[in-house]
Amino acid sequence: MGTRDRIIDAAEQAIHEFGIAGATTKRIAHQAGCSEALLYKHFASKESLLLAVLLERMPALAPALAKLRLSVGQGEIRANLTTFTTMALEFYTRAAAIAGGVLGDPPLLDGFRTMLVKAGSGPHLPIEALAEILRAEQGADRLDAGIDAGAAASMLMGACFHRANLSYFVDLPDDDETWAGTIVGTLVRR
Amino acid sequence: MGTRDRIIDAAEQAIHEFGIAGATTKRIAHQAGCSEALLYKHFASKESLLLAVLLERMPALAPALAKLRLSVGQGEIRANLTTFTTMALEFYTRAAAIAGGVLGDPPLLDGFRTMLVKAGSGPHLPIEALAEILRAEQGADRLDAGIDAGAAASMLMGACFHRANLSYFVDLPDDDETWAGTIVGTLVRR
Repeated sequence: MGTRDRIIDAAEQAIHEFGIAGATTKRIAHQAGCSEALLYKHFASKESLLLAVLLERMPALAPALAKLRLSVGQGEIRANLTTFTTMALEFYTRAAAIAGGVLGDPPLLDGFRTMLVKAGSGPHLPIEALAEILRAEQGADRLDAGIDAGAAASMLMGACFHRANLSYFVDLPDDDETWAGTIVGTLVRR
Repeated sequence: MGTRDRIIDAAEQAIHEFGIAGATTKRIAHQAGCSEALLYKHFASKESLLLAVLLERMPALAPALAKLRLSVGQGEIRANLTTFTTMALEFYTRAAAIAGGVLGDPPLLDGFRTMLVKAGSGPHLPIEALAEILRAEQGADRLDAGIDAGAAASMLMGACFHRANLSYFVDLPDDDETWAGTIVGTLVRR
């Protein structure tokens, strides 16, 4: 395993144990068995290291969206969306501690915002990608054309993101699979 | 203004400036012009002080839910829900930095969870309260009985919570009022 991967693994572990604030680059470098200088050779900032953890170590949202896009017009739309919902919930649950920690740390949040603007990236893009897929399903006449695809995507992703966050604070009564099915059934009813 | 209120104000200000991690009880006490010992006389823990900021200083969710409950069977349901959605979005936007900061700090999160269990409270309860209201509107035949009220409440609250969080990371294209109207229109369509 290369140094870069060791650093990302060490960062993920440190965030899990100590939270964002406690996951200092010093601690991460020590855990990865390298110097802080070498860490900064691979990652320009703590922000870019956090982004690498989010994009490279989490069960990512991009493959789930790609899978859903490939299934447009294929199979049962509710089943496809329920599978996607479960994957999105899993992603947000893993990502929640990082996203929360960044949000709760004003200087880190500033750096993160700047980095996202430069990269033309952002956590709102998966919603737009999902809306595009829902529009394609409307085009294939498999989803009520009266639904606003953007609003439906906001609600589906938002419900997953919220539930992921809630699960850290309380034990939720219903199981994830059942919940996902009910959400999708309510959203795509005709 | 009493000491307790001064402490809560100082905590809110410190969180805004320094984030949860930087908002130490030492800093808050200093800002409130009291000793840390006196702070701990009013609040048993940093967790309970944070909860007081959330419940007493934020434009709260409880009055928004109470207002919506009073409007069951009255006026136009879409307009009522759109007003509620805007208020929920405002609440979650103000609360996001605290919720995120707690989530990103494992020991603080542990303390928060324990406190919520003891209090029989939790951030999932507003979803249940909204579901109850939606069921009452179904009983009054103002909302499609085929909608699962729990799922609809999860989606409406989730969309607000997610958007509140996103707004810290990126500049969102559409304005809040338009967005709220589209969400509600998609949710309660017949």
